[in-house]
Amino acid sequence: MSILVVGSVAYDAIQTPFGKVDRCLGGSATYFSVAASFFSAVSIVAVIGEDFSAEDLSVFSGRKINLDGLQRVAGAKTFFWSGEYGFDLNVAKTRDTQLNVFADFKPRLSEEQRNTDVLFLANIQPELQMDVLRQTNRPRLVALDTMNLWIDIKRDALEAVFREVDLIIINEAEVRQFMREPNLVKAARQILALGPATLVVKRGEYGVLMVTRDAVFAAPAYPLENVFDPTGAGDTFAGGFLGYLSSRRELHDREFRRAIVFGSVLASFTVEKFSLDRLREISIADVQERYQDFRALTHFEDYEV
Amino acid sequence: MSILVVGSVAYDAIQTPFGKVDRCLGGSATYFSVAASFFSAVSIVAVIGEDFSAEDLSVFSGRKINLDGLQRVAGAKTFFWSGEYGFDLNVAKTRDTQLNVFADFKPRLSEEQRNTDVLFLANIQPELQMDVLRQTNRPRLVALDTMNLWIDIKRDALEAVFREVDLIIINEAEVRQFMREPNLVKAARQILALGPATLVVKRGEYGVLMVTRDAVFAAPAYPLENVFDPTGAGDTFAGGFLGYLSSRRELHDREFRRAIVFGSVLASFTVEKFSLDRLREISIADVQERYQDFRALTHFEDYEV
Repeated sequence: MSILVVGSVAYDAIQTPFGKVDRCLGGSATYFSVAASFFSAVSIVAVIGEDFSAEDLSVFSGRKINLDGLQRVAGAKTFFWSGEYGFDLNVAKTRDTQLNVFADFKPRLSEEQRNTDVLFLANIQPELQMDVLRQTNRPRLVALDTMNLWIDIKRDALEAVFREVDLIIINEAEVRQFMREPNLVKAARQILALGPATLVVKRGEYGVLMVTRDAVFAAPAYPLENVFDPTGAGDTFAGGFLGYLSSRRELHDREFRRAIVFGSVLASFTVEKFSLDRLREISIADVQERYQDFRALTHFEDYEV
Repeated sequence: MSILVVGSVAYDAIQTPFGKVDRCLGGSATYFSVAASFFSAVSIVAVIGEDFSAEDLSVFSGRKINLDGLQRVAGAKTFFWSGEYGFDLNVAKTRDTQLNVFADFKPRLSEEQRNTDVLFLANIQPELQMDVLRQTNRPRLVALDTMNLWIDIKRDALEAVFREVDLIIINEAEVRQFMREPNLVKAARQILALGPATLVVKRGEYGVLMVTRDAVFAAPAYPLENVFDPTGAGDTFAGGFLGYLSSRRELHDREFRRAIVFGSVLASFTVEKFSLDRLREISIADVQERYQDFRALTHFEDYEV
């Protein structure tokens, strides 16, 4: 199945306790598409400025990534984000955000893009997510990501999009914040009651909890000795998750669980280096090997009396 | 195999966002022994005051719990702890600690107790843990729990005990604090380098990570819609874990993993009500049923290409 991602292609400045980089490739659509392309063809709808380099553009080369929807604006600069992490790598502190070309981003989908099977609305303002969704011819699966900022200042618009999508990928704290409910399971069920069939709760170094009407599935994060930079982990997870799902014929619980693990596998690589440096190095064989490591990490047998 | 636990039998006052209780049964040895007794016979070494009621004593009745080592001190009061939780139930705030009879607790093991197969040194000061350990005839498995206080004020004494035990059950933040290392996996490996074969890292609502020289095993906590009071969850976990292990002939990785899950199952019941109220209600059938729920919660299949 075809995947379309609408999000950012960006430059980041990042400081972690383990190093710093003043300008590196980033953006939700970037991480998402590279991760998804391990399993499925993916099309990007995003915008970049004149400053976006050919070398950075090469991250998409040799992969099943369609760039017809990647618009370049002359005389303007690419979206820029600067963030910092302390030893608690679960929490990013934003130091600077320069929207640049992203300020006027108003995606217009082509006829082919409107017919996508799977749509991922990366974290952009909810009205824009709704606008993109309305342009499509009802994809088979629509997923979105969001952030605390939109819950703070655009909760109603966000709830309107929640009601229209199949799957929400969201941080644990945001689930609680959105429903003003401290119990995660209760809050998750309340969001499902709005319409989505599946809620995928990201818990940083603690992994992922997937909640549906019928089941809950918990996957740990891969316990790494070297977590270098968590930037992009969430979008990488979403890319691996939806990329794997799109490669399957049937979208059953069994495949959703495998997809959660593949998403977690991809994300575990992303955090090992700055930017997409680690993602660019690995092959599908590395991904499959770490999938087996996840099996070993979580497996336990039925008990014997 | 026989289990001996050295710890507290206590009264607690607890306030959570969901209710409060001024005086209820608590104590590490209490939670531990009741949980362990679902699988194995267990002996308690602890001390209580004259105020300890017959009704509270009845929690041990009808179970495989030996109270020969439960000393009652006339004219003195039982250990008392008062604590409070906010919506983040992972963190308890101590409001009051009255050591009472516990201040002069100096356990002397009987001949039979010295020959225990499994020893659990609950969270007491490290010198006392060492003193008890020295009285035994080298049990087959020695496990201990500890707390941030001892890392703060008795780190050397604690490290000395770490070097003598087989298994450490400890909170995630304490692993990092003890080794002054923010990466959990690195910190865990450094503790293993001191001698213990197994480190069981408790992560509250995120479950448990077991680290050995050869393997890492991650188990989630059971996602509950009603977490009422987390007091005793850690000791209940330890009881279920060591109780199950003691019921097995071989102590292989496979059994350790099952033990982690049984410990998690027992702990998931404890937090559903105040004190041991929920633990007192359940049967081994309830425990086995929730073990199956844990299987459904974590199971995913190998991928198909």
